[in-house]
Amino acid sequence: MKLRELGEFGLIERLKEILYSSLIGDDTAPVKLGEHTLLLTTDTMNEGVHFLKEWSPESIGWKAISVNVSDVVANGGEPLWALISLSLPPELETKWIERLYIGIKRACEFYKCEVVGGNIAKLEKLSISVALVGKTQRFVGRSGAKPGDSLFVSGTLGDAKAGLELLLMKKENYEPFEAALIERFARPTARIDYVKHIVKYANASMDISDGLVADAHHLAKRSGVKIEIDSSKLPLSKELKLFCEKYNKSPTEYALFGGEDYQLLFTHPKTRWNPFLDMTEIGRVTEGEGVFVDGEKIEPKGWRHF
Amino acid sequence: MKLRELGEFGLIERLKEILYSSLIGDDTAPVKLGEHTLLLTTDTMNEGVHFLKEWSPESIGWKAISVNVSDVVANGGEPLWALISLSLPPELETKWIERLYIGIKRACEFYKCEVVGGNIAKLEKLSISVALVGKTQRFVGRSGAKPGDSLFVSGTLGDAKAGLELLLMKKENYEPFEAALIERFARPTARIDYVKHIVKYANASMDISDGLVADAHHLAKRSGVKIEIDSSKLPLSKELKLFCEKYNKSPTEYALFGGEDYQLLFTHPKTRWNPFLDMTEIGRVTEGEGVFVDGEKIEPKGWRHF
Repeated sequence: MKLRELGEFGLIERLKEILYSSLIGDDTAPVKLGEHTLLLTTDTMNEGVHFLKEWSPESIGWKAISVNVSDVVANGGEPLWALISLSLPPELETKWIERLYIGIKRACEFYKCEVVGGNIAKLEKLSISVALVGKTQRFVGRSGAKPGDSLFVSGTLGDAKAGLELLLMKKENYEPFEAALIERFARPTARIDYVKHIVKYANASMDISDGLVADAHHLAKRSGVKIEIDSSKLPLSKELKLFCEKYNKSPTEYALFGGEDYQLLFTHPKTRWNPFLDMTEIGRVTEGEGVFVDGEKIEPKGWRHF
Repeated sequence: MKLRELGEFGLIERLKEILYSSLIGDDTAPVKLGEHTLLLTTDTMNEGVHFLKEWSPESIGWKAISVNVSDVVANGGEPLWALISLSLPPELETKWIERLYIGIKRACEFYKCEVVGGNIAKLEKLSISVALVGKTQRFVGRSGAKPGDSLFVSGTLGDAKAGLELLLMKKENYEPFEAALIERFARPTARIDYVKHIVKYANASMDISDGLVADAHHLAKRSGVKIEIDSSKLPLSKELKLFCEKYNKSPTEYALFGGEDYQLLFTHPKTRWNPFLDMTEIGRVTEGEGVFVDGEKIEPKGWRHF
C-alpha cells in the first residue's frame, strides 16, 4: 500500500503499534527527569509543502520555531532549548540560509529559548526540522476534557487560511488588511501569554494547526467526550471579515476548517474565564462523542499531509 | 555565494555568528536542568546522500538512531528520549516505513532509549531526522585534550568506508568478510559500552564520523593542541585487511580517512588504559597545533557535505 492511500493518521496508528508507544498523541511528549517534567516536540517545514523558496526566509525561520513553541505552550510549558536540522540543496544562496537563521534567532529571542545545536545535510529539497525541549509545572494534554467544561479558543480563527490564499494569489499590491492576513499565516505567534492560564486552569489543551473541527475531533476522541461548537460565537478578525466580503467567502467556513492558526483550543469550567486574555468561549464539552456545530454532527475536514 | 562554494564548515561558522552561540561545536549540546546535565543532539539521514531507498529500511532506521546515540556516548552520556521527524514521498510503500520503524525500535531497545514523539511530513525525497536527549554525570567534549595525554580509539577503523564501497558495487554475491564490512557501514553500533570509561577518565572525546584525521583536526583545534598519530598502531580489522588485499587498497588510508565508523576518539593519561575495552592507543597529545601522522603534518581530508 502506498503512503498516499494509507494517509497520515493511518500511518501514525501503524507506527504506534510497532513502537508500542502510548505517548504519541499529544502536541508534545512529557517526560520525567527527577522532579522536572520536560516536554519534547518536533516539527518540520518542507519546501513545496509548507513553504515556497521565494517566500521570506526570515518568516520561514520564525515560523519553524513558532510552530514548535506552540506545541509546548499548548501543553502548559515554556520553551527552553531548540535543535535545528537543515537539509539544503548545494545550489542554495548562503544569504538565504543566513536570513532563515535571522528569523530563527528573532523567534528564539521573543520566546526566550535558545538554539543549542543542529545539523546541516545535503538534499535536493529544503527541509527544516526543529526539535524543542520545554518544561512545565503541570502537563496539560488532550485527554482531560470533562463534561461540563466550556470550550475556549485564543485569538481569532481562519486568518491563516485566508492569508495563505492571498499569498498564493501573488498580487502586485495587497491592501493593508490582506497584508495583515498574510502575516498571520507567514509569521504566526505562539501563545506564550497563555501558559500560566493553561497550567492553572485547563483540563485539556492543544493548539489548532489542522483546523478547529479537525483538532476538536482529536480532543473529543482522546478525552472520550462530545464537543459542541456554536458557530455564532467563533472569533473572527475584522481582516477576515473584509477578506470574505471582498472575495465572497464564508468566514465561518474559514474559522471552522482553516488550519495553521496556531491558536489554542482548551477546556475548563466557565468560571475560570480570564478577562485579560483574548479568549472566547465557543462551545462546551458534554457526554458522548464526536464534534457538533450548531447541533449538527460534523466530520473532520482540514489539513492532511497525504 | 552558493552553499556549494562556502562549504559546510564555512556555513556553520556564519550561522554561529548570527546566533552568538558558543555551544555549537561538540557532538552534543550540554544543558543544565537543576542538578542534571542533559545532552541534546540531532542528526539527519537523507535519501541519495546518506542512503539509497533500495537499501534495507531496517538498517537505515537502526543507523538513524545509532549515529545520534554515538554523539551522546561520545560526550559521556546515556540516551534517554528520541524524537523522529520523517519527510516522505506520498508514493512510498507503507511497508518500507514500517520496516524503517522496526529498525528504529530495535536500536532503541538495544540502547535502552525510547521514541517519545515525532512528526511526519510530505517531501519528494526521504529525510529522517532524529533528535535525541541524553544525560550525563560529566560532560566530556572536544576541548579538554591535554599535552601528555595518550590518544585512543575504540574498535577498528576504516571498515565503514570499505563497506560503503562494497555496497555500491551491487554484487550478486558477497564473500563473508565483505558482508561483514557492509554490515559495519549499514548498521554501525554506538559504543555505549564506553560511557563509564569516558566519564571517569577522558579529558576529551568525540565520535569518528568524518574520518580519523578530519575529526582529530576538530579535537586539536578545539583543545589548542597538536595531535600525533602513529599509523602503525591504527587498529585494522581482519576483514579490512582481506578487502585491501583483494582490491589492492591501502588499509592505512581507509583507517585515516574513512568516515562513518562511529568509533570513539578520546584522550587521557596512558595509565588509564582499560584492558576490558577494545581500545587502542594510536598516538599522543602534545603542545602545538595540527595533526601529524608519523611525524608529517597532514591536512583534513574526509567526508564533506557541500
